[in-house]
Amino acid sequence: VDEFELIDAIVEALGPAAGGAWIRTGPGDDAAVIELSPGCDAVASIDTLIPDVHFPAGAPAELIGYRALMVALSDLAAMAADPRYVLVSLTLPEVKPAWVHDLTCGMSAAALRCGVSVCGGNITRGPLNIAVSVHGQVPAGAATLRSGAAVGEGVYVSGPLGGAAAAVRLAQLMPCDAEHLSALQSAYYRPLARFDCAGAMRDQATAALDISDGLIADLTHLARASNVSVDVNASLVPVHAGAELRDALFGGDDYEIVCTSAHDLRGFTRIGQVHSCTGSAAVSVDGEGPEGSGYRHF
Amino acid sequence: VDEFELIDAIVEALGPAAGGAWIRTGPGDDAAVIELSPGCDAVASIDTLIPDVHFPAGAPAELIGYRALMVALSDLAAMAADPRYVLVSLTLPEVKPAWVHDLTCGMSAAALRCGVSVCGGNITRGPLNIAVSVHGQVPAGAATLRSGAAVGEGVYVSGPLGGAAAAVRLAQLMPCDAEHLSALQSAYYRPLARFDCAGAMRDQATAALDISDGLIADLTHLARASNVSVDVNASLVPVHAGAELRDALFGGDDYEIVCTSAHDLRGFTRIGQVHSCTGSAAVSVDGEGPEGSGYRHF
Repeated sequence: VDEFELIDAIVEALGPAAGGAWIRTGPGDDAAVIELSPGCDAVASIDTLIPDVHFPAGAPAELIGYRALMVALSDLAAMAADPRYVLVSLTLPEVKPAWVHDLTCGMSAAALRCGVSVCGGNITRGPLNIAVSVHGQVPAGAATLRSGAAVGEGVYVSGPLGGAAAAVRLAQLMPCDAEHLSALQSAYYRPLARFDCAGAMRDQATAALDISDGLIADLTHLARASNVSVDVNASLVPVHAGAELRDALFGGDDYEIVCTSAHDLRGFTRIGQVHSCTGSAAVSVDGEGPEGSGYRHF
Repeated sequence: VDEFELIDAIVEALGPAAGGAWIRTGPGDDAAVIELSPGCDAVASIDTLIPDVHFPAGAPAELIGYRALMVALSDLAAMAADPRYVLVSLTLPEVKPAWVHDLTCGMSAAALRCGVSVCGGNITRGPLNIAVSVHGQVPAGAATLRSGAAVGEGVYVSGPLGGAAAAVRLAQLMPCDAEHLSALQSAYYRPLARFDCAGAMRDQATAALDISDGLIADLTHLARASNVSVDVNASLVPVHAGAELRDALFGGDDYEIVCTSAHDLRGFTRIGQVHSCTGSAAVSVDGEGPEGSGYRHF
C-alpha cells in the first residue's frame, strides 16, 4: 500500500463526510476550496514535518520553524490564494524554552514575510512533530486547481529550480549556521511561498501546483488531473546556481510554482507545452519519457 | 516551565505575527476568530492526540478517530460556531490499512454527526500523532469568548458531567469493544460536541468554554479571562450516571459547555453564579475554595 493508495482508501472510507454543499474542491489538490460566504472562497491545507524526514533533526530551530510554515503556506500559493491565518500543532519530546523560542522566531519571520497571522495552536508532549494548518482566500471560483490545463497551452515556472535538491545531493544541509547560509542552504531552508504570483495566476493560469516532489513528478500530477500530456524543453528549464539539470527536473523542495497558461505569463519562464493525452507517459522531456533520465534512482 | 508559561513565551516571540488586521481573537481562547468577509467570522482551532496520553494506544481505531474529531470540534462549539470543515494530519508509524480504515470510519461518523466535512489532510510516516484542525463560522461578532462574564449572571452547563472521568478513575477504558460500550465508556469515547447549543449561546451567553480540563479548572479560565469570581452550588451540578460529584467537578473530557448568562438559558442547567472578583480563589464551591476538595490530588 503506497501513500496514494492509502489516501484513496481514506477518501473512500470518509464517503459523504469528505464532501458537503460548501466544499468546492475536496481531497486531492494542493488545498481544499470551501465556499464560506458569497463571493469569497476559503482555501485550506495542512502539512506535517518530522525530524530527519523533512529536516535534519540538528538544524537550527529558527530554520525549522521558518521552513515548516513556508512549506505549508506554499500549498496556498499554488492555489493563487491570499494567505490569512495559520494554526500550529507542536508536539515536543521535552520543553527546551530556548529551542521553542528560536522555532517560534523562525515561524514569525515566515509569517510576516507572507503577511499571515499565526493566530492559534496547540502544544502536546510526545515525539517531535510539527503540523501546520494554513488558510487563505480567493475570489469565488478563482483558485487555480491541478486540473484545467488544455492542449496548446504553455508550461511555466516561477523561478530557478534544483537549489534545494542540490543542497541535499551535495550533503550541504549540515553543519549549518542560520546566520551564514550558503546559497544552496538558503534554497532549502528559506524557500519563499510565491504569493506574489497570485495575480498573474488568477488572471491567466489554467492549472497550477507548487514544486515539492520535483518538477517532473509534480507536472505528472498536473497532467493526470487535467487529462493531458506535457512536454518539457530541458534547455528552457531555469537551473538554480550551483545545481544541475537533474536537480531541477527531479529534485523537490523548491516551492516554485509550475502552471499552464494560454498566455505569456508575466513573471514566469516558459519551459514546455501541453499536448493531447496520447503517449504512454504523462510527462516527457524533449519528447522522451523521463524514466531513462534517472528518476527511479535519484 | 509549565504549558501556560510556554504558550505565553511563544505568543510573545510571535509578536505582531500572532495578530493582524483581520484577527478578532488570537491565541488564548478555545479558538481563534478571524474576519474573512463582511458579516461573517471564521472560527478556527487545532488539537492533537497522542497514544497513551489522549487515548489508550490499544483502543479500537474507530473510537480513536471518532474521539479525535469530536474533541477538536468541541472547541468550535465552545465559541457557538457552526462547524464547516476539518483537516487531519495523520502521522503513522506503519501503514496498517485496516486500522486506518477503522480510524477513518470513526472520523466520518463524527463528521456526519456534526455536519462537517473532512475536506483535506496529510499523511506522514513517524510516531503516531493525530492533529485535527477545525473550522467554522459565526455571524460577525457572535462568537462566545471566555471573557464577557459579568457580576450577577448565572453559571450554566449543557449536560451531566463526570462520566468520562469516572471511566478513567474506574479503569474502564480497556478492554473495550466498540460495538458494546458501557455507558461510562461511551461518555469517554463518544462525546458530542454541543453545536445544538449554539443558538441559545449566541442569543444569551456572555462567556463560554467546553469542559475538557474539568469543570472547576475550566471555570477558572473563564473567571480569570472575565475578571470575575464564580461560585458553584455543588448540589446543582448534574452528575453523570455512574459518576461521583468529584468526577463532575474535577474530571475532564466531558466536552459539555459551561457558560454564563443573565437569562435562564434554555437547554442548560444553572449551577452557580458570578460574583465580583474579591476572594483569593477565582472559583469556589458552596462558598469555599476548591483546593480542599481534592483537586490537587485528583
